[in-house]
Amino acid sequence: MNEAIKCYGSSEMIQKLENKDSLFLCVIANTLTSRINGITGAGATPELTDYTPAADVELLMLGKTLCLPEIPKTVVDGNSTPTPAIITKAALDLADIPLLVADAGAAIKPNIPYITINETPGGDIRTGNAVQNSEKIFNNGLLLGKVLSKLTDHLVIGESIPAGTTTALGILTAMGYEVDHKMSGSTPENPHNLKHSVVINGLKCSGYTAEELKSDPFLAINAIGDPMIPAVAGIAMGSSVPVTLAGGTQMTAVCAIIKSISPNFDFNSLSIATTIFVSEDETSDINFIINQISDISIIAVDPDFEKSDTEGLVNYTKGSVKEGVGAGGAMLAAILKGISVEEIRIKSEELCKEIFEN
Amino acid sequence: MNEAIKCYGSSEMIQKLENKDSLFLCVIANTLTSRINGITGAGATPELTDYTPAADVELLMLGKTLCLPEIPKTVVDGNSTPTPAIITKAALDLADIPLLVADAGAAIKPNIPYITINETPGGDIRTGNAVQNSEKIFNNGLLLGKVLSKLTDHLVIGESIPAGTTTALGILTAMGYEVDHKMSGSTPENPHNLKHSVVINGLKCSGYTAEELKSDPFLAINAIGDPMIPAVAGIAMGSSVPVTLAGGTQMTAVCAIIKSISPNFDFNSLSIATTIFVSEDETSDINFIINQISDISIIAVDPDFEKSDTEGLVNYTKGSVKEGVGAGGAMLAAILKGISVEEIRIKSEELCKEIFEN
Repeated sequence: MNEAIKCYGSSEMIQKLENKDSLFLCVIANTLTSRINGITGAGATPELTDYTPAADVELLMLGKTLCLPEIPKTVVDGNSTPTPAIITKAALDLADIPLLVADAGAAIKPNIPYITINETPGGDIRTGNAVQNSEKIFNNGLLLGKVLSKLTDHLVIGESIPAGTTTALGILTAMGYEVDHKMSGSTPENPHNLKHSVVINGLKCSGYTAEELKSDPFLAINAIGDPMIPAVAGIAMGSSVPVTLAGGTQMTAVCAIIKSISPNFDFNSLSIATTIFVSEDETSDINFIINQISDISIIAVDPDFEKSDTEGLVNYTKGSVKEGVGAGGAMLAAILKGISVEEIRIKSEELCKEIFEN
Repeated sequence: MNEAIKCYGSSEMIQKLENKDSLFLCVIANTLTSRINGITGAGATPELTDYTPAADVELLMLGKTLCLPEIPKTVVDGNSTPTPAIITKAALDLADIPLLVADAGAAIKPNIPYITINETPGGDIRTGNAVQNSEKIFNNGLLLGKVLSKLTDHLVIGESIPAGTTTALGILTAMGYEVDHKMSGSTPENPHNLKHSVVINGLKCSGYTAEELKSDPFLAINAIGDPMIPAVAGIAMGSSVPVTLAGGTQMTAVCAIIKSISPNFDFNSLSIATTIFVSEDETSDINFIINQISDISIIAVDPDFEKSDTEGLVNYTKGSVKEGVGAGGAMLAAILKGISVEEIRIKSEELCKEIFEN
């Protein structure tokens, strides 16, 4: 196997996918949860997180952002780390992988063609009333997965939703999994206590019992989830070809919802692809979470950013950002088409230069 | 060649496409032009034409309509003819052709996943100020055509836009073609004089000279066109695989816009597919129009509806509806995959029964 790829669980999936054509779908959404101070790094300020998903996909498709004057970044102690959309774009461009964008409820709509699954963003999960229509979102996702899987051999689904690890923590908690201090985050100082208290608040305000939430995935998402989760669960379940969920611990919440909707779902044709920054993160444990759900392979890609001379990329090795916009899955899809991580790193550096110099 | 197919111009395209995989894209939009009394049959009343595009694509994807209690129909002298979405659905289902929907400005949005190219419907072309942003719509179309053509060997683009032949007449007139009494329409009594006066009114109110409009395709669309035309022109020009424009005389307006934007555009990998009800229509002349624009093949499919015992389908042979929702192109794509017109006719009859009995 390629040295840049680390596989947790069976590596059968990678062998099955080699040389297959992939379609990369990026699902975007917002919730007001990202406005909570300190909860996410996915935007330079809490208010700017509204723009991050739209700006990410504009960057992927156009190589520049239209809704914002600059690209989304995570700022920690004055250090700027660019959105992982940079890595995703490098990988997709190098391997000429087709890109589609789906809106599951972005606050700001991107200035590119995109598939509407759902228009309305989610609320703040502290209200216990975050999403209005998760079952409808799921059903639209099912329809979309069905048609997209007729157009490719391999569906790679990424996401951009600020504070998505917090809403995913909400879902995993509601579904009864042990996840405290196990979720990843976009900053080196993972604010576990803040995320935990936000979730506890939301669960309490929802007015539902733990048993009610655990037994009804759509009730749980409506209370304390986000619109990306039912959209991606629907697309994955609607697909008739292998699916790679391209993301970190958020994608374990998608798996939990799939299992809750369909306890006999065949997870053999589904895996999670992420970056080494998530799989080796000492502040979280994606494997510990996934093992509670099912036998699902996690594939982690190492872009070797410690070899880079671009400061923004080196920051990834120090715990900033880690993953997002399907970076891990996009790298995997490119590697499956014969692209090396070195090429991806160099292309990411070039994109950083181009974008920051303009 | 298949007996059900009549080819005007070169038949090379059909040979090139045999056994190729097709992707069917239905582009929907509205303009307030369809509210003019008597101008279109694409809806039981002028007000219901707002719902026709959304209902058409819901019917294609779901086999039922959600935005309306019943399917769109054309009513003439008390006789009901069902939307051509019935034929399109029959063909796509039989040949298992993937379907995507794109919104170029529908007044009512469908309750299915759809690609947003543009949200805002067009105005009444009598104002001479029908579309606000045709160049942006075109550019989004270009991006979409580029990505969709990576996912298929053959892109078939249909449309549903009530009063679309009138706005197409506006464009063709603005582009300087001789089209008086040559455009097709959805009713047996083609209201040429009404359409002509609407266009003349719009041209006058636009405040632009004939020369100004003729030399600037986006100015012309903004004045007197509709949002479907720049969307489909963009998708077709962005495509790197053969394109079939699935529609009647409206698609000649798309060709006129393509030629105006790119005078050296290679029309060898583009053709128009329609029904025999358009190509043999005695109230219009699609060949006369297309020959003024370029050497573009027109392929007409005959579904043999005179053999049907379903009254709504027999009405097609009497000049009702004729074409729409890409019916001709969908039949062509199915025939290319080995489906017979007899199978399409029988399936259309079954769909009529299912839908009308429920």
